[in-house]
Amino acid sequence: MATAERPAAVGAVEFSHPVRVYIEDTDAGGIVYYVNYLKFMERARTEFMRSFGFDRQAIFNAELMFVVRDVQVHYLEPARLDDELEVTVRLLDSGAAYILLAQSVRREEDVLAEGEVRIVCVDQRKLVPIRMPAQLLAALKSGATTGGET
Amino acid sequence: MATAERPAAVGAVEFSHPVRVYIEDTDAGGIVYYVNYLKFMERARTEFMRSFGFDRQAIFNAELMFVVRDVQVHYLEPARLDDELEVTVRLLDSGAAYILLAQSVRREEDVLAEGEVRIVCVDQRKLVPIRMPAQLLAALKSGATTGGET
Amino acid sequence: MATAERPAAVGAVEFSHPVRVYIEDTDAGGIVYYVNYLKFMERARTEFMRSFGFDRQAIFNAELMFVVRDVQVHYLEPARLDDELEVTVRLLDSGAAYILLAQSVRREEDVLAEGEVRIVCVDQRKLVPIRMPAQLLAALKSGATTGGET
Amino acid sequence: MATAERPAAVGAVEFSHPVRVYIEDTDAGGIVYYVNYLKFMERARTEFMRSFGFDRQAIFNAELMFVVRDVQVHYLEPARLDDELEVTVRLLDSGAAYILLAQSVRREEDVLAEGEVRIVCVDQRKLVPIRMPAQLLAALKSGATTGGET
Repeated sequence: MATAERPAAVGAVEFSHPVRVYIEDTDAGGIVYYVNYLKFMERARTEFMRSFGFDRQAIFNAELMFVVRDVQVHYLEPARLDDELEVTVRLLDSGAAYILLAQSVRREEDVLAEGEVRIVCVDQRKLVPIRMPAQLLAALKSGATTGGET
Repeated sequence: MATAERPAAVGAVEFSHPVRVYIEDTDAGGIVYYVNYLKFMERARTEFMRSFGFDRQAIFNAELMFVVRDVQVHYLEPARLDDELEVTVRLLDSGAAYILLAQSVRREEDVLAEGEVRIVCVDQRKLVPIRMPAQLLAALKSGATTGGET
Repeated sequence: MATAERPAAVGAVEFSHPVRVYIEDTDAGGIVYYVNYLKFMERARTEFMRSFGFDRQAIFNAELMFVVRDVQVHYLEPARLDDELEVTVRLLDSGAAYILLAQSVRREEDVLAEGEVRIVCVDQRKLVPIRMPAQLLAALKSGATTGGET
Repeated sequence: MATAERPAAVGAVEFSHPVRVYIEDTDAGGIVYYVNYLKFMERARTEFMRSFGFDRQAIFNAELMFVVRDVQVHYLEPARLDDELEVTVRLLDSGAAYILLAQSVRREEDVLAEGEVRIVCVDQRKLVPIRMPAQLLAALKSGATTGGET
């Protein structure tokens, strides 16, 4: 996941989605179970896609599916019960069949976790990579999102 | 969990909390994994309590904890990916150390699931029942909630 | 879910499945998150069905699906990190399209939770009740399980 | 997470832990929800530590906690309902307060996912890095594990 050649313009727009921490998200350490940050990140990605008009059901209906190929997360500080988090999504790179996203989980000014996720568009049955809808790719590249929910 | 002697006035106010269905909530049957309705119901209860000024951390700080003693759910129809649900909470009964709540999960006019949950206030270390804060019990009885988030 | 008229012979055989508690199962209260007992119970039911030769994939392949219609759990004592639990399944009643099971979660001699679960056999697409395979119903009734894994 | 300077001897021993896929692990794509591989990996790490005599409760009792600092997973093929997986753990590197592990999820000969996880030993209250028990570090380095459960 080298980042050197990324054009500066890509991903200028950052999408943000609020997440509240519930007891279901915590573990016996008294903090958010680290695996659950990945759920929070997926919720934000889902809303990011929805902001372009592509909800999960629409993607399923097109007999497509987005699968995660690579995920990388760096944890800095724990989130806690009742926290109101902001989960961000920013496009780093994209190809005919994949999207590379930078994501973060924040609590006010603090970055609690940050990561990169590469998702691939696949045929829903064969699970082999397939070009994503041109409309979605164009929207992603133009950054024509509504800008998040906050 | 007999309901016969419940005073009619109790639980007149219904609290409602919106929940969006994400891929994390579904299973290979293509519908919401039935266990996850219980998470949705707990999120709504948490917000219900917060509407009285009692968030989970505040309760923990008071060295109290609410634990579920009994749960009963009847499933009517499946929820699906991308659904926008409403999860309701209504007080059925309460005592010095317990609260009995009726809950439902709805999608527009349809009731997808309904249940009853008895939660008990316990000492956080010993896990034995203990009177809940008078202020909370009074608030619950007066139904002095803000009426939910929708 | 009255139990009065159940014939004594039904459910004489109790199936048992071991479950180890991991950090993923706990919450900030330091104990197993109560919702996760339902996952443990489903794992035991799945192994119970597998002991009759019906794994989930086989059921899916037959274009059937078992869905939970009613669940009722009574919690007595908390399970904790590293606990080795036994989760039991016992047939209480069955019909052409449903099975009623008694389940418990135990730690050595202690019963931590007990419940009843009614599952219904449905058509995988239409989600309407449908007769379960005669072979499965016969096996269930005869109690011809291998007797569990312990 | 560069691997160049790792001494060849480290991590020669590979620990393996079996995991069965249940319906709770799947999503509406009909495959295992990618986030859940991280739970499987943690179960294997927990058993790996237990093989050295350090179960989670023992670590908690020592007022320590292991937290994940970095996680990186590469997904190759999906796991499915009823699959019997093997989840491996191999020591790549360690310091006074951290352990770097290589992990994989396999189904027979196929590698479904592989990753690296850096875990840090922290003080349970302050959550700041602290030396791990000398006995654990020595055991890890000598590879004196029982060799897994398979």
